[in-house]
Amino acid sequence: MVNIKDVAKKAGVSVTTVSRTMNNRGYISKETRTKVEQAIKKLDYQPNQIARALFKKHSYVIGIIVPDLSHPFFAEIINWIEAYASDRNYKILVCNSLHDADKEKKYLDMLRQHRVDGIIMCSHTLDVDAYQKTKMPIVSFDRIISPSIPYVSSNNYKGGVLATKHLIDRNCKKLLHISGPLTNDLLANRRADAFQATCTESGIDYKIIEGAYVKSTFEDNWNFIENKIAPHLSEFDGVFCSNDIIAYTLFVFASKAKIRIPEQLKIIGYDYHSFTRMLKHPILTTIKQPVDLIGKKLCSTLIDKIENASVGNCVFDVQLIKGETT
Amino acid sequence: MVNIKDVAKKAGVSVTTVSRTMNNRGYISKETRTKVEQAIKKLDYQPNQIARALFKKHSYVIGIIVPDLSHPFFAEIINWIEAYASDRNYKILVCNSLHDADKEKKYLDMLRQHRVDGIIMCSHTLDVDAYQKTKMPIVSFDRIISPSIPYVSSNNYKGGVLATKHLIDRNCKKLLHISGPLTNDLLANRRADAFQATCTESGIDYKIIEGAYVKSTFEDNWNFIENKIAPHLSEFDGVFCSNDIIAYTLFVFASKAKIRIPEQLKIIGYDYHSFTRMLKHPILTTIKQPVDLIGKKLCSTLIDKIENASVGNCVFDVQLIKGETT
Repeated sequence: MVNIKDVAKKAGVSVTTVSRTMNNRGYISKETRTKVEQAIKKLDYQPNQIARALFKKHSYVIGIIVPDLSHPFFAEIINWIEAYASDRNYKILVCNSLHDADKEKKYLDMLRQHRVDGIIMCSHTLDVDAYQKTKMPIVSFDRIISPSIPYVSSNNYKGGVLATKHLIDRNCKKLLHISGPLTNDLLANRRADAFQATCTESGIDYKIIEGAYVKSTFEDNWNFIENKIAPHLSEFDGVFCSNDIIAYTLFVFASKAKIRIPEQLKIIGYDYHSFTRMLKHPILTTIKQPVDLIGKKLCSTLIDKIENASVGNCVFDVQLIKGETT
Repeated sequence: MVNIKDVAKKAGVSVTTVSRTMNNRGYISKETRTKVEQAIKKLDYQPNQIARALFKKHSYVIGIIVPDLSHPFFAEIINWIEAYASDRNYKILVCNSLHDADKEKKYLDMLRQHRVDGIIMCSHTLDVDAYQKTKMPIVSFDRIISPSIPYVSSNNYKGGVLATKHLIDRNCKKLLHISGPLTNDLLANRRADAFQATCTESGIDYKIIEGAYVKSTFEDNWNFIENKIAPHLSEFDGVFCSNDIIAYTLFVFASKAKIRIPEQLKIIGYDYHSFTRMLKHPILTTIKQPVDLIGKKLCSTLIDKIENASVGNCVFDVQLIKGETT
């Protein structure tokens, strides 16, 4: 591979001059600059960023740990993080925890060993300690880890209120909420809190069933609905699902069971990611999280933190998207 | 950050002994090994992989350039690449070219500067030269770049034959193929070749319309169909779409235009990625590419090449998935 000595030789200058030209350090005549730049171009010289990272203690790489890369929500978040990172000349190392604490821990260690400048945590299977111990810039999605680790989320509580009130406005009397995993005190659990509070205020009967470890495939969701939800479904006339994929699966299940949607059963989801936006049969009623803004903010907060700018938490507004299922 | 000297001090041994213990080099007594391992654990020491990469000229990082991270096909491919890479202790740097040649070139340079061990190219906007010039291990998805760059693809020609024959078997007489971009001699274009050959053999009227730069959102596809396909749609009774998202969008468009599917118009797609597998209204007839196997093979071929094992091209079989749209 071409190195800096080859460039110096080709340009007829010293290695120091090449280095100073590339780093815009000190006075370099226009003529010398042109010679160096032409030599770099002719030889297709690529400066060694690894050596530079070691020297500057700055790799311009950020790590991202997500639970499931093939899930449309996380695929889209990563898309936006990458776009923003690229604008600021950072690269992203992507890791997939598959909701597995061992894997998440292993990835945290690996990212530290690779001296990434910081980490965006979208997977949350570990205790708070594990993140604090890393002593590196971290930004968290949808979880409050500690006061020193900023978080970005949507307004989950408001989302829960909007969804529940919408079902009540549509005349539902007995409501079910299929929540995400209620462990680890994730901010997404505020949806369940809001559901419960709103039902109580309105004197509406309700139940919460934890969709614990619900995966992103139709089949996994189908099995969950068949085994855990179907036996209770006749008790309810409205369901608030904590994500759009389970809402869609529930719609398909109910349709096959000859339950008329929305007449007999109303369904509302949460997310409004690429899958939901693409879907036209049915057009799902859901709560929109601004995935683009969340992705960009996760990335800008982390880079600001890496570059010692002051940062804070950010909670994005959410919005009711009225579709055909309510 | 804790360094190797801290570990040596804590364990009461020399830096060389710590290094030899960690690298399993030379004789180390069981007692010494235990002391070193306990010190590493207590101090939570993370060896500096950047320094190691510089020394060993081996970063254990591979780069992936895709055209669109939020597209379900590429999200899924990356998911499988990451899973396989992780099993072999490699990490992935993900880049998003957005079908932009400048961006793709910039990413190629950046990955080289970061001394990744190799690159998986799923984006193909550049000329063959640009890839050859990198002089590093590359594996290509769906494009033959040069004899020294192995490729992985599905059997696109067979896929085109299966799709076209299926429409003819279902009694279609006038066929349309909406192809991908026909530039850059991508292997996906073999689908169009097969369509053309099969129609000609069977004496069937046909037309090919290039779905050139079709993006992954419903709206982009809808505009394309409204402007480029709708004016011709009444001339055909069967359409072979080069991807499932355009097939789905065409289904929605035709349904709104009161064209009965499959009675008046039969539609078949290509891919069978997570979106299609999730979709139940309609269940799309399509050609299945084994996304999991393709992702794993791209990764295993690249790592084998990096580690100097012999590698070859790989073409995966495809399969007709009969749904409700034909």
